[in-house]
Amino acid sequence: MPVSYEPLTPVSFLDRSGAVYGDRPAVVDGRRRFTYRELRDRCLRQAGALAGLGVEPGDRVAVLAANGSLLLEAHYGVAYAGAVLVALNTRLAVAELTAIVDHSGACVLIHGPELADAARAVQAAARSGLRLVSGGEEYETLLAASPPRHEAVTDERALLALNYTSGTTGTPKGVMYHHRGAYLQSLAMVSHFGLNGDARYLWTLPMFHCNGWCFTWAVTAAGGTHVCVPRPDPALVWPLIAAEGVTHFCAAPTVLLALVSQATGAVAEPPRHIVVAVGGAPPTPRLLEDCAARGLEVTHLYGLTETFGPLAICDWRSEWNQLPAAEQARLRSRQGVGNVIACTTRVVTADGEDVPADGVTVGEIAVRGNNVMLGYFNDPEATAAAIPDGWLRTGDLAVVYPDGYLEIRDRKKDVIISGGENISSVEVEAVLARHPQVLESAVVALPDPKWGERPVAWVTLRQPGAVSAEELREHVRGALAGYKVPDRIYFGELPKTSTGKIQKFVLRQRANQGCGAQGGWPQS
Amino acid sequence: MPVSYEPLTPVSFLDRSGAVYGDRPAVVDGRRRFTYRELRDRCLRQAGALAGLGVEPGDRVAVLAANGSLLLEAHYGVAYAGAVLVALNTRLAVAELTAIVDHSGACVLIHGPELADAARAVQAAARSGLRLVSGGEEYETLLAASPPRHEAVTDERALLALNYTSGTTGTPKGVMYHHRGAYLQSLAMVSHFGLNGDARYLWTLPMFHCNGWCFTWAVTAAGGTHVCVPRPDPALVWPLIAAEGVTHFCAAPTVLLALVSQATGAVAEPPRHIVVAVGGAPPTPRLLEDCAARGLEVTHLYGLTETFGPLAICDWRSEWNQLPAAEQARLRSRQGVGNVIACTTRVVTADGEDVPADGVTVGEIAVRGNNVMLGYFNDPEATAAAIPDGWLRTGDLAVVYPDGYLEIRDRKKDVIISGGENISSVEVEAVLARHPQVLESAVVALPDPKWGERPVAWVTLRQPGAVSAEELREHVRGALAGYKVPDRIYFGELPKTSTGKIQKFVLRQRANQGCGAQGGWPQS
Repeated sequence: MPVSYEPLTPVSFLDRSGAVYGDRPAVVDGRRRFTYRELRDRCLRQAGALAGLGVEPGDRVAVLAANGSLLLEAHYGVAYAGAVLVALNTRLAVAELTAIVDHSGACVLIHGPELADAARAVQAAARSGLRLVSGGEEYETLLAASPPRHEAVTDERALLALNYTSGTTGTPKGVMYHHRGAYLQSLAMVSHFGLNGDARYLWTLPMFHCNGWCFTWAVTAAGGTHVCVPRPDPALVWPLIAAEGVTHFCAAPTVLLALVSQATGAVAEPPRHIVVAVGGAPPTPRLLEDCAARGLEVTHLYGLTETFGPLAICDWRSEWNQLPAAEQARLRSRQGVGNVIACTTRVVTADGEDVPADGVTVGEIAVRGNNVMLGYFNDPEATAAAIPDGWLRTGDLAVVYPDGYLEIRDRKKDVIISGGENISSVEVEAVLARHPQVLESAVVALPDPKWGERPVAWVTLRQPGAVSAEELREHVRGALAGYKVPDRIYFGELPKTSTGKIQKFVLRQRANQGCGAQGGWPQS
Repeated sequence: MPVSYEPLTPVSFLDRSGAVYGDRPAVVDGRRRFTYRELRDRCLRQAGALAGLGVEPGDRVAVLAANGSLLLEAHYGVAYAGAVLVALNTRLAVAELTAIVDHSGACVLIHGPELADAARAVQAAARSGLRLVSGGEEYETLLAASPPRHEAVTDERALLALNYTSGTTGTPKGVMYHHRGAYLQSLAMVSHFGLNGDARYLWTLPMFHCNGWCFTWAVTAAGGTHVCVPRPDPALVWPLIAAEGVTHFCAAPTVLLALVSQATGAVAEPPRHIVVAVGGAPPTPRLLEDCAARGLEVTHLYGLTETFGPLAICDWRSEWNQLPAAEQARLRSRQGVGNVIACTTRVVTADGEDVPADGVTVGEIAVRGNNVMLGYFNDPEATAAAIPDGWLRTGDLAVVYPDGYLEIRDRKKDVIISGGENISSVEVEAVLARHPQVLESAVVALPDPKWGERPVAWVTLRQPGAVSAEELREHVRGALAGYKVPDRIYFGELPKTSTGKIQKFVLRQRANQGCGAQGGWPQS
């Protein structure tokens, strides 16, 4: 390769930090602490261990683990082995995990020791040949016995990771991340959030969500410290914030709401300044106020799994600090502008024309650029549907204000976002349809003060009264993650267009108006 | 191009800032102020104007102008026209400027109105066909009459700019900058210096030096404000710092020394916090102390024209704040570690082996990566000499400390760095040799408290006493920029090795020991 060219890969950030911040803290994970030299050594040995297990360049390696050094190390070790990381959502049911493992063709599943039962169930259900590696003692023994390995990245557009999303169709889709995109998105996160060598980043956001919005790599690029927490439990988070001097964290509004409403102990201290990135839904004015009172400076983000996480950022302008609080909250709840490396973010009509920047005309957010996925893994049809004309359609409907900031007004896709997790209404409907008594069904989002949205279902039974709402919920629970089970199930006929299409907007209106009230639907 | 790929170009930063910070301040240049929307519009029209003058993609456009909006706009406008920017050092003599214009094959020379005489002299001396465009009224009329133009960048490794350096040989060499390198180097500057939308960057560093170490693009990427100053005169700088709320600037130690020693008026106010990047020579402990007292946080950088400016950064570790002041100054004067996008920075022996990180063993700094030039324009021999084996040899000799930070100990090349400007000793020797009375000569660096280094010459005349030192200085002044004229000229025989090579180290020792004292050389 010419002297002036090196393939861009986020793994190079660990190479640099391992070399130049060797004795500085890289990871805090419970009682364990690793310097950057140690972290890099562990990741190189993880690569060696994977190679020892027969993993070859291009193979997929799945990881089922809570936030911690094990999963963080996989963000480098798997790439050092030349393989492709598949970070699994720990909240999924065994059937869902198995579908992803099979679809990705993963040959190894690394799992946290506390998730051994789920991992073994997946192994039993998946096609043969899946090797398990347990975190904890087994993993440490393996690392100690394995030589360091470092496969060079020769193609910066090669596959780095698969991130599965339920999306709109219900079939899991493997979003293909490339090295170049992850590298650039990481630099964008460093820039926008001012990460530097003194950053103490708390892992409240699951690393399995878009690889932690690329902060798995960005924090390392800046030479900051990854402070791990297995779950964003306020009882764990606040003491860590105090003890570790946390400077940054990311969260869905639901998580942030729980944190500020269950602030204990350490929070009684004078507020420190913490930079918080919030995505998945707009933060409410009340939440913003509560955060400000605790020294949390909230920046609102917007993105998709398909865009390496944060695509747009509600970049705060200091002149807005002079505005009334209500106006500030309104401005801060907007999704904002494309991040510094997001080449082009548009809002377009059905014909692909840009909408006027009038804050009124609604269009669909369409993007292209280096932080867009390569496509869906082994799914050219879904890829073509998402990218009809060289622009990724996000399915989110938005307006653009005269200052260039966009705000989402509605969602085109049948996706319900609950606590920052995507739920495909189609997927839930498909499970409901498998029940012998269900004739047809429709699942829509119900606004929820805690979770943002929750799924509710309208079901037409073959024999009215033959099955109860609770029995149907149990049926869904057997196939899907618990958070996907509809909170409520209503029975009756579904409103349809003259051509027979279910009018989901009518159901959404009913849901908003208290359900069951209109049309005499019996409430579950 | 696929949805997931856009060529990296620093021009895209202006596209973004023009769109999302349209009404925010982009440029302050004397009494003129432009928003980002205005700046982008002016740059697009500059491109249109260049096209109207017959500039085609790939053509070179030279600019001879002091720091100001005209030169800043050329950093985008020339690229919008698909052409290649050649920013000229305003301190060069007409003969030097002409050599660069001819070597680059520039077809247009844009110049500041105050440099019209020099521009016309270059036009008269250069090969025919050079068009002049004067800044000021002529330029404004041209902008107003020209349609916006935006040639798409299709190859991110294409030529963006030529930056001429006298280097070691004396023949001007055109360092070829590519779009990708400038884009990534800009993001590195944003990251390391915490540039954001509130940054007010003061242009004390000439924009013609490595395109202002890529801050011409980095400040725009962050959406900060370019505060222009035509020269780093303390009488201009301090009032601007106060009036414009400057947050960042870059400078050579010489310039910084002048600033802190001639601080007036505004400086009597309580110090504000300003981030200062210093390069070209290590800052002295005394200078660092004086800066700290004025609220200037100094970061030491190291780089070459060949590396888009700052290649390494003396990344400050907060734990060092606890050390004694003298120790802090020692640490801060080191050149540091490769910046976040500088892929690989090594210190190697003559055999290309890494030296041990012992703070003692000296080797040559060798680099490769995305912020390395494509090569020297139309000069494959010089390119091959600089890059013998896939690694750019910097000519700087350094040690590596156990913490990974490097420190320069000596220079391999015959380059004298005076006030941040490179002077090729070979170039000065070549001019001396053109004088009929000069038999041979040797030019070496003399340490200088103000300029860092200054050139001094030893000359053997054909007929001793036939010409005076002052006459020879006048001879050099006729061909080269004033700062290249040797401060002192000594006459006599030159010390040589048995094979006839001039022993410059002997001359350096003499220079350090007060010159003339040894060997009975008459002082000029």
